[in-house]
Amino acid sequence: MIKKSYLLTPGPTPIPESVLAASAQPFMHHRTPEFSEIYMAVTEGLKYIFQTDQDVYILASSGSGAMEAAVVNILSPGDKALILNCGKFGDRWIKICNAYGIAATAVNIAWGEIYTKEQLKEEMGRHSDIKAVFSTLSATSTGTVYDIQGYSEVVSQTETLLVVDAISGVGAMPCPMDEWELDVVISGSQKSFMTPPGLAYISFSKKAWESVERSRSPRFYFDARTARKSLQKKTSPWTPAISLVIQQMSSLDIMQTLGLEQLFEHHRILGTATRAGIQAMGLSLLSKNPGNSLTAVRTPAGIDGTHLVKTMQSKYQAYIAGSQAPHQGEFFRIGHLGYVGGFDIITALSALEMALADLCYTCERGSAIKAAEEILKENWQ
Amino acid sequence: MIKKSYLLTPGPTPIPESVLAASAQPFMHHRTPEFSEIYMAVTEGLKYIFQTDQDVYILASSGSGAMEAAVVNILSPGDKALILNCGKFGDRWIKICNAYGIAATAVNIAWGEIYTKEQLKEEMGRHSDIKAVFSTLSATSTGTVYDIQGYSEVVSQTETLLVVDAISGVGAMPCPMDEWELDVVISGSQKSFMTPPGLAYISFSKKAWESVERSRSPRFYFDARTARKSLQKKTSPWTPAISLVIQQMSSLDIMQTLGLEQLFEHHRILGTATRAGIQAMGLSLLSKNPGNSLTAVRTPAGIDGTHLVKTMQSKYQAYIAGSQAPHQGEFFRIGHLGYVGGFDIITALSALEMALADLCYTCERGSAIKAAEEILKENWQ
Repeated sequence: MIKKSYLLTPGPTPIPESVLAASAQPFMHHRTPEFSEIYMAVTEGLKYIFQTDQDVYILASSGSGAMEAAVVNILSPGDKALILNCGKFGDRWIKICNAYGIAATAVNIAWGEIYTKEQLKEEMGRHSDIKAVFSTLSATSTGTVYDIQGYSEVVSQTETLLVVDAISGVGAMPCPMDEWELDVVISGSQKSFMTPPGLAYISFSKKAWESVERSRSPRFYFDARTARKSLQKKTSPWTPAISLVIQQMSSLDIMQTLGLEQLFEHHRILGTATRAGIQAMGLSLLSKNPGNSLTAVRTPAGIDGTHLVKTMQSKYQAYIAGSQAPHQGEFFRIGHLGYVGGFDIITALSALEMALADLCYTCERGSAIKAAEEILKENWQ
Repeated sequence: MIKKSYLLTPGPTPIPESVLAASAQPFMHHRTPEFSEIYMAVTEGLKYIFQTDQDVYILASSGSGAMEAAVVNILSPGDKALILNCGKFGDRWIKICNAYGIAATAVNIAWGEIYTKEQLKEEMGRHSDIKAVFSTLSATSTGTVYDIQGYSEVVSQTETLLVVDAISGVGAMPCPMDEWELDVVISGSQKSFMTPPGLAYISFSKKAWESVERSRSPRFYFDARTARKSLQKKTSPWTPAISLVIQQMSSLDIMQTLGLEQLFEHHRILGTATRAGIQAMGLSLLSKNPGNSLTAVRTPAGIDGTHLVKTMQSKYQAYIAGSQAPHQGEFFRIGHLGYVGGFDIITALSALEMALADLCYTCERGSAIKAAEEILKENWQ
């Protein structure tokens, strides 16, 4: 058979054909009125998705660059930070804080477990002078969604800032930055934004900007003050990743035409169908509060999860994601974020059924598809 | 007439059609053997162009990100640096050093003037403990080429490191990193590399790696130690800009097929033809040692250079670059870097002739074309 690939990972996510083609347009210079117009249209589109009146800055970097930008712009060496460490990327917040001399205290949440606003309130009570709480909307490593709105109820009444890694959540589930009074929100192009990786997004509340002005952390490339100054001139301080920005404009057009409510509903249907299919196969979910960006599934007993993911990739060219250190092989992850349609869920479940059969896991073939179809069909319109 | 655009700036540079199309391929995940193969092929291609046995790291950032990476990886707060400030980007080195508490001393070279190795030797004699000298191969803001080989003769015999901003030079003119004993060399995808902006490149000599190990500068996203560790696993520490890396593989293929000597010769012919055309129009070059990446031309008396560039852009869709602060309007720049052919030089000169005529500058029409054609024709093969 022709080896046709199916990208079913929680980032990078599939790119619409029209967005792929947008990158092959004749190439333009970035210091021109034509590009400024595109750049500002993307900024406006990002504000719509972030649900904020604050500017959203476009960085030429991975999402990790935006994480560093969050830390160095609002905190100074010696400041205290509380990290709600719920997976692989919570760990990254700690490493960034360590690199910049910020005293990070981690609350280690077991992968897939929830963490309540009451727990946060209690934890905050045990510390004084926490300058920022670092949280995650949707943990890419576990698929768990956290109660950002609840955390904000605790944090927003204090001097502390609430930073939200919304990288694989915003655009797929509610995270209204202004309404929820979130102070720093970050994301990246390769998630719900339907664009190749290479752009990261960050926005600061008014309260956060006060810290940006005060921060003594050394910074240059990721300095938000420089970005703000440039955006007033409708441009970026450094050469932007022109073709990616043009692609982002193209996919934001798709997203805005659909509208936020419909985007959330779209992801809800896909997430619900995936979970129904998985459970119909007799498999169990990792997360206590699974979200609609991705589904993490426990590897059934007797099967090597890493081998399962490799079989799906190499035999069926169905690219799902494995689990990351220190939980390698324990579970696997199916992405349903961004430009994913109902039949992509069917594909994921079918590939999983076939690969599991290859590895001698027995379940009633077709049961997952049937369960997913029921959800998809009743919602399809 | 149909508004057809001609990109004639020294970055971004024109993208070959096949490289544009490469970005529209079905999208792949970055943690796969398929992408690792591409990633390593690009790394090898970059080593060929940099002429080094050291690894060249691929950063998801603008060139300015690689500049920051150079500073923070080899220097510590309080260290002394000498900046050979020959244009807009020399100034950027100073700002980055200032941001990270590095004591930067600038040698201010008038834009377009040369700076000899003897001057550097004398300057070095006036300081003690200079940890790094920051130099530029080809100043994008003036088109001037500097004697990097000569600077290395001065610096390589000492403990001091020589950092080279080769962003708009490497790949277009000789800059053999190992042979010339250069310690840090940086570049970016949107210059001779014929790829859209969004990737930056950096390589460290063995001598520089000793400083990387010792550096106490805070760093995370641009930490070379993390990049080195990931490259041993044939990957990048953060999500790479996948589509740009694939495009870079495609254009490196063109570059390697031609070979370095032919690339240098190609740029020599284009540079010579451009300069001949400009001088035949009675215009004068800004630079005392103009290189083959771009040509900076003094705006003739009585004409507003900014207006000239705007006329070329808005009336003729011929995108050349103006001059940057604090020299706005004093000169303009024609790029002939990367995927530029002989007739692109003819286009640039013709657009310039027509725009100058619009602004009432009189010269014999066709004289520039004739002079350029003579050079191009005798070298065309």
